Amino acid sequence: MNKKNVTFDDIAKYTGFSKTTVSRYFNNPDSLTLKNQQIIADALAALDYKENKVARILANGNTEFIGVIVPNLYLHYYSEMLNRILSTYEEYGYKFLVFVGDENKNIERQYISELLAYKIEGMIILSHTISSKELASYNIPIVTIEREDEYVCSVNTDNYMGAVQAASLLVKSGCDILIHINSPVPENVPAYGRIKGFEDICSERNVVHNVILTQLGNTFEENKEKLTQLVDEIEDKYPNKKKGIFMSNDTHANILLNILIRKYGTLPDNYSIVGFDNSPISSEAVIPISTVGQQSELIADEAMKLLVMQMNERKKRKPVPLKEPIHKIVTPILIRRETTM
Amino acid sequence: MNKKNVTFDDIAKYTGFSKTTVSRYFNNPDSLTLKNQQIIADALAALDYKENKVARILANGNTEFIGVIVPNLYLHYYSEMLNRILSTYEEYGYKFLVFVGDENKNIERQYISELLAYKIEGMIILSHTISSKELASYNIPIVTIEREDEYVCSVNTDNYMGAVQAASLLVKSGCDILIHINSPVPENVPAYGRIKGFEDICSERNVVHNVILTQLGNTFEENKEKLTQLVDEIEDKYPNKKKGIFMSNDTHANILLNILIRKYGTLPDNYSIVGFDNSPISSEAVIPISTVGQQSELIADEAMKLLVMQMNERKKRKPVPLKEPIHKIVTPILIRRETTM
Repeated sequence: MNKKNVTFDDIAKYTGFSKTTVSRYFNNPDSLTLKNQQIIADALAALDYKENKVARILANGNTEFIGVIVPNLYLHYYSEMLNRILSTYEEYGYKFLVFVGDENKNIERQYISELLAYKIEGMIILSHTISSKELASYNIPIVTIEREDEYVCSVNTDNYMGAVQAASLLVKSGCDILIHINSPVPENVPAYGRIKGFEDICSERNVVHNVILTQLGNTFEENKEKLTQLVDEIEDKYPNKKKGIFMSNDTHANILLNILIRKYGTLPDNYSIVGFDNSPISSEAVIPISTVGQQSELIADEAMKLLVMQMNERKKRKPVPLKEPIHKIVTPILIRRETTM
Repeated sequence: MNKKNVTFDDIAKYTGFSKTTVSRYFNNPDSLTLKNQQIIADALAALDYKENKVARILANGNTEFIGVIVPNLYLHYYSEMLNRILSTYEEYGYKFLVFVGDENKNIERQYISELLAYKIEGMIILSHTISSKELASYNIPIVTIEREDEYVCSVNTDNYMGAVQAASLLVKSGCDILIHINSPVPENVPAYGRIKGFEDICSERNVVHNVILTQLGNTFEENKEKLTQLVDEIEDKYPNKKKGIFMSNDTHANILLNILIRKYGTLPDNYSIVGFDNSPISSEAVIPISTVGQQSELIADEAMKLLVMQMNERKKRKPVPLKEPIHKIVTPILIRRETTM
């Protein structure tokens, strides 16, 4: 069994100092003489205080815990981002409490309120469930990734630029008609830039185009059924055209590709496909998929830097809150593979 | 900012009880009269103690935290199992600290020692890095899933039965030669049952067979290169035979399938493939893959039950340690799809 917790009382008794002095050691060590700092440090070692992080939390509130909420692990983008975030442990030392939540706002609220009670130091939010206004009201360092972020700090890909890159590549690969398939993304979500960028560049270059905004569903089966139906509609509508299809993520791009391969044995010459994310599925597909790469490792690192900056500010004696949320933008990288030959 | 933490001292002062009495309320409430229990309960409400779980940890050691270690999120089996484990929050209320660790034993040890210092209540281990003997020495409730488990509790699939099902299905689909591709799994790892079951049933039924034990690597690129090479070798060796290939997991089965589709435009009639796990990729493949389904939801639930049972025992005044680790076996379910026609 673990040893009994070491309290400030124990340290005070052991050293003969008052509890206030012990507390000052943790919160403002420079207010003690070097000699007294050493006495308390020795006492901590003797009492095996190192092993007792819970007591340290009581002393200075630093749990080294960060909450992470992802909408699901079905979309390859999210399991990839989660992987990158968890992998920052070695560099930053923070431990991650992970929650999968997308559908039930109340369960997600309950989870967050529990995390706050445990005095986690910050949160990284990828789910879309709770508004940034409500998140900001929790009064804890937060960074969101690729979601509505008006009132909180965020790291997002330059979605507009990504869509411009994707559409340009489809034009270059000789497509007659450009199609973008996405869900009806609200304008305040970063991914809306994919729709806007696509429309702007097509209009600017006078390219025939079609934006199909529809719910593809939350499971593979729903995605596949809906996309099979869309392929039929597109082939009916543009029978003799070379079709360039820009999908809103690689998971959906891969499902589209597989539907076509199943139908034709390969990707027909009159199709080009570009995905988004550069998640593993895009390179692992039967025919490797061209895609707009989100720099997931860089995004995770920027998110951690932005969060650590806020968390460290909190630990100062007179923390200065941010005047405005900081929004970092990461450039996407166009990756040409075999679906845009 | 959060309120200051409420300590036993505060509660003692507020109620006029001694700190010992307050402590008894948390650790052995029945030793107090009902009236005194009510007085302390009212004080906790008045002091907003509910919000202060850190203090509760100090009082009774119950953090409601469970550590989860997965080897990677690349293999679909692990992201699926992690998803199932995290999803038990709604039913059990435990929060999960997640770590991805497979390569660096020291980092994983450091992570675990940190979690122990934070007084997590238990661990679910899917990584293979640290021996069950060492895990048992941490003296904390542990359940492993599909790894070496001699000294700790575990939940595993009946791998032997799964291999028998897979081989039988390949025989039924008219294969002349049965091939099992796996890594050289040690005999004390549950997945070894896949090799043993395959060999036993083939020998018993006098089926020509070949077990290929080789490292396929840890990335998609390595897997693909190695499997492309194996396909060439197999086609050289068995040119006119119908080949039934039992892969050790669905991720690898899907890569094999994609290599063949890329080569032939479809899965040729002289091939049958069976995977293992029933992870999402098996149903999402271009041609849905027959597989031995691990019941991931049931495994996650059994693991939680086994862990909660151990954690609850710890909370008793006189906990009785398990005499022997408990090993639960979950039956696999053969799922026939389109790669074994």
